[in-house]
Amino acid sequence: MPTFVLTDVSSDVWTESLTIDPTALGLGQDWPWSVTKERLRGGRRDGVDLIVVDNGLLRFSIVPTRGMGLWKGWFQGNRLGWDSPVTDGPVHPALVNLSGAGGLGWLDGFDELLARCGLENNGAPFEVKTVKPDGSESHATFGLHGRIANIPASYVAVQVAPEPPHEIAVLGQVDETRLFGLGIRMATRISTVPGSNSLTIRDEFINLKDQPAPMQVLYHWNFGPPFLGEGARFLAPIKSVTARDARAGEGTRHHDRYQAPTAGFTEQVYYYELVGQSKEVPKTLAMLRNREGDKAVVLRFQKDQLPAFTLWKNTAGLRDGYVTGLEPGTNYPNPRPFEAARGRIVTLPVGGSYVTETTLQVVASPDEVAIVEAEVNRLQAQSAIIVSSTPKEPVAPEG
Amino acid sequence: MPTFVLTDVSSDVWTESLTIDPTALGLGQDWPWSVTKERLRGGRRDGVDLIVVDNGLLRFSIVPTRGMGLWKGWFQGNRLGWDSPVTDGPVHPALVNLSGAGGLGWLDGFDELLARCGLENNGAPFEVKTVKPDGSESHATFGLHGRIANIPASYVAVQVAPEPPHEIAVLGQVDETRLFGLGIRMATRISTVPGSNSLTIRDEFINLKDQPAPMQVLYHWNFGPPFLGEGARFLAPIKSVTARDARAGEGTRHHDRYQAPTAGFTEQVYYYELVGQSKEVPKTLAMLRNREGDKAVVLRFQKDQLPAFTLWKNTAGLRDGYVTGLEPGTNYPNPRPFEAARGRIVTLPVGGSYVTETTLQVVASPDEVAIVEAEVNRLQAQSAIIVSSTPKEPVAPEG
Amino acid sequence: MPTFVLTDVSSDVWTESLTIDPTALGLGQDWPWSVTKERLRGGRRDGVDLIVVDNGLLRFSIVPTRGMGLWKGWFQGNRLGWDSPVTDGPVHPALVNLSGAGGLGWLDGFDELLARCGLENNGAPFEVKTVKPDGSESHATFGLHGRIANIPASYVAVQVAPEPPHEIAVLGQVDETRLFGLGIRMATRISTVPGSNSLTIRDEFINLKDQPAPMQVLYHWNFGPPFLGEGARFLAPIKSVTARDARAGEGTRHHDRYQAPTAGFTEQVYYYELVGQSKEVPKTLAMLRNREGDKAVVLRFQKDQLPAFTLWKNTAGLRDGYVTGLEPGTNYPNPRPFEAARGRIVTLPVGGSYVTETTLQVVASPDEVAIVEAEVNRLQAQSAIIVSSTPKEPVAPEG
Repeated sequence: MPTFVLTDVSSDVWTESLTIDPTALGLGQDWPWSVTKERLRGGRRDGVDLIVVDNGLLRFSIVPTRGMGLWKGWFQGNRLGWDSPVTDGPVHPALVNLSGAGGLGWLDGFDELLARCGLENNGAPFEVKTVKPDGSESHATFGLHGRIANIPASYVAVQVAPEPPHEIAVLGQVDETRLFGLGIRMATRISTVPGSNSLTIRDEFINLKDQPAPMQVLYHWNFGPPFLGEGARFLAPIKSVTARDARAGEGTRHHDRYQAPTAGFTEQVYYYELVGQSKEVPKTLAMLRNREGDKAVVLRFQKDQLPAFTLWKNTAGLRDGYVTGLEPGTNYPNPRPFEAARGRIVTLPVGGSYVTETTLQVVASPDEVAIVEAEVNRLQAQSAIIVSSTPKEPVAPEG
Repeated sequence: MPTFVLTDVSSDVWTESLTIDPTALGLGQDWPWSVTKERLRGGRRDGVDLIVVDNGLLRFSIVPTRGMGLWKGWFQGNRLGWDSPVTDGPVHPALVNLSGAGGLGWLDGFDELLARCGLENNGAPFEVKTVKPDGSESHATFGLHGRIANIPASYVAVQVAPEPPHEIAVLGQVDETRLFGLGIRMATRISTVPGSNSLTIRDEFINLKDQPAPMQVLYHWNFGPPFLGEGARFLAPIKSVTARDARAGEGTRHHDRYQAPTAGFTEQVYYYELVGQSKEVPKTLAMLRNREGDKAVVLRFQKDQLPAFTLWKNTAGLRDGYVTGLEPGTNYPNPRPFEAARGRIVTLPVGGSYVTETTLQVVASPDEVAIVEAEVNRLQAQSAIIVSSTPKEPVAPEG
Repeated sequence: MPTFVLTDVSSDVWTESLTIDPTALGLGQDWPWSVTKERLRGGRRDGVDLIVVDNGLLRFSIVPTRGMGLWKGWFQGNRLGWDSPVTDGPVHPALVNLSGAGGLGWLDGFDELLARCGLENNGAPFEVKTVKPDGSESHATFGLHGRIANIPASYVAVQVAPEPPHEIAVLGQVDETRLFGLGIRMATRISTVPGSNSLTIRDEFINLKDQPAPMQVLYHWNFGPPFLGEGARFLAPIKSVTARDARAGEGTRHHDRYQAPTAGFTEQVYYYELVGQSKEVPKTLAMLRNREGDKAVVLRFQKDQLPAFTLWKNTAGLRDGYVTGLEPGTNYPNPRPFEAARGRIVTLPVGGSYVTETTLQVVASPDEVAIVEAEVNRLQAQSAIIVSSTPKEPVAPEG
């Protein structure tokens, strides 16, 4: 398969800019897809590499410099993503102090459609205090959502299948590794088929070390208008929904409905267990649908890979970040010690790896939306919904 | 007006280097002014953009990568600025850890003629401890003088007025913004007229968010020789001067006079209220004059915009940073909580902004110096001077 | 002497790439040496400058962007250095948060053959808590091994002696300096002679300030296979060896022998006083020899310059960092306050400097190894060895 290596630090390869399209590959202009790579300059984005994949219908950008996250997307005039208060991104990780701001420094660069959270930790920041033999203390801050979204990829390549439908794949490797610490390689493959309404992210997390490696990963998919709006709905086949805290508890009854942009709104977060197709086929899905029911974004993934689902509702003012996060993960975004104590940590054995696969599908007609809703309803029929409007063990810290 | 956009992240514009002068604009060589832009390479300055404006008489450099600060200046053979122990600047913000060194990391890059301090906080660093429900703690460090001087500008342009005297203006936008945090755009306009002895900085601080935005800004103007030297004087129309602390108290009687470089000298800081021209016309000024009285730098600003004035005397050894700071601000550089409790925080309403304008004027003859001194004296005649050699509320923490 | 300036921020010189060899200098191809300089791109190395010196027999790389450290070396098919879990280096300092991870952030970039540790502090991280008059606290983290290995050089040049044997020298200046803080310039000269089996590093630490400057420096030389391996030996003329802590105490009897890669092995560290040739000629040496005794790396230095010698044994799994560190220093890598209290801090007077010189010699035949061993033995004959398998004052904290 033709492979265009854009970055490979092991052989000192790096390509400043590139465009790949059917003409360049001599494939005939069957569908006007393209992949372009450029280096951004100026401002806080200076030195950031950006790849834009356009399958002719669906377009999205990948940021190798920011851990192979997805920056923005577009589908038939609909924007995928949100208006972050970070207006000048994608921000170079060198300008993001993850341990700054009491562990909230991650927010300095947060503007993505998809930011992966992990791998040493994700979720709320926490601090570990150590008292040394001489009585002195040290404080280690584990910042919000970990480091993976701010690590430049050491390997980036583009592959185009020589046979129709000429699947396009962007490959990347991001290493979160240090002596005496975690050593995990995330090998990602982000693919789409020309003319399709979906993209698929397959991540393999490979233990690079000779010790078992505990890890967490959470996929922070973020959407604003036109999918999010007053009356928009969250749909998924739900076994249980639990308010993360008292603030979320105030809105549990409407956990699946969104309000209009509301200045001063404080975020509400809900933890879910979803219904899978079956034990053998643990596929599930989650969906954000606009009020009219003629547009929706759908995430498809597997419960056995990503068993914990989190919904982040931040229907604040439009300029404060009017956004919702649909977040399948290996765990809930509580501080890691809480998750670890409840067994929601993945441990990679020596020589082992862990795979997740998530598909983002965009539907933009009432009929298509109805079809996905019916799919949700069929799965929902397997289970009643347990609702907890107070935080409840084992998913959320009580009291 | 001809506008040369050097950086605009919103449209992916960035210019590596550029020279603008009368010839390039077809204006005729009426005065040998120029504006040049380059990218610096190597050392800690690698990747820093630098603009040098030469109006033919006054020359100064602007650092878009460091928050549109002024790096160095020159006027008829006189250097504006100081010899910082940071000898290899301008330092790229990616190499400055603002929360490092107990919140003093800002000093790693501090070498400017003008560094703006703010916008979330300025002044002394402070730490906020939070105890969480589970008993764990978190510590957030608010570093010395805040972040604005270490944020790369997302927009930079040069304008030259088509009509004589062809005013030259450098425009910049620097955004201090994050989700759940401050969201303020500083839109600056730094202008000078060919052949003049002054430059003017007009900053508009624009609230980008749907919530009111509290802010602080302090203009840290720094001068060493030849304006600073033994016997040099600080002159301004003074209502009150208060020693910041006991150390400053030791020198209150000579607050307006400078000594020779003195190895081991510990800084002294004084807080002033100045006299304005009138309530309606709140113009005021502050001046650093050499001993001989034949050279001076003068800052002109408005009391209603920048009501708090701070003088920083750091007459340490020449190689330790022999420098004085003339610092008009919205507040005194105490830790923000102190200033906030005393009402010295500006709150930008939703959709609102705040404007400051400061002119730096350089005078280099006894006659010109005398004229400005007379101006100071006329304003001083309106008011007695209240001197406090101990720190005193509400401007400085007592005891 | 022909000098090729690669970086000089004082005159805005920076060279993207360069190759110097006998042909380029018109010296005749007496020996196929070369010096090449390039800028690395992509991944976490993006923007890092790298110099490779090949003397025809011995090849090594220098990283100006990382404090003029030595990255990797090769000698007749033998690799000098180690396989760090940091697989994508050399890592740009802008991506290393030295105060992160509780002061262990330095490890994010640690993959060198030689990393210098210092200058404000080296050794274990420590935290200084300050309680302010208003009762608030601040915590300053002094990170593991200090800052010097993560400061880009402000001056870099290559010199080639015009006369045979055409000594090759790479010069560099790295400034660790800030207002109110340390102000030391490290002027390094890294030299080798074409066709030789050694390189010499001469560092002069120059006080840039008008105040005395306390400093520490430790040379963290790191070796993995083929010099390190099961049965490999550490040899040096030893006056005393002291286990750093209880963990090291477990292995004191075998302090000078290495085991095979052992997953889960916890590091062991020993502190030595070595024997010098004489009081007047304080030369000494330390050596790592493979089991077969046909390959060794030898460090030669002076006890009066580098009186404290530390051995770091980290015979962990191959992929976890199977490595040993031979570390001559001005001090032991205890937290600086401990070292300061025991007088192991160098104080540079005003206008003064401190020089260290270390030679790395590589020997790759049984005869040559035997010659160096005999040299060690001759020095050892001057002194008995005092062994302490418990940490013992004044070199290591007791209890």
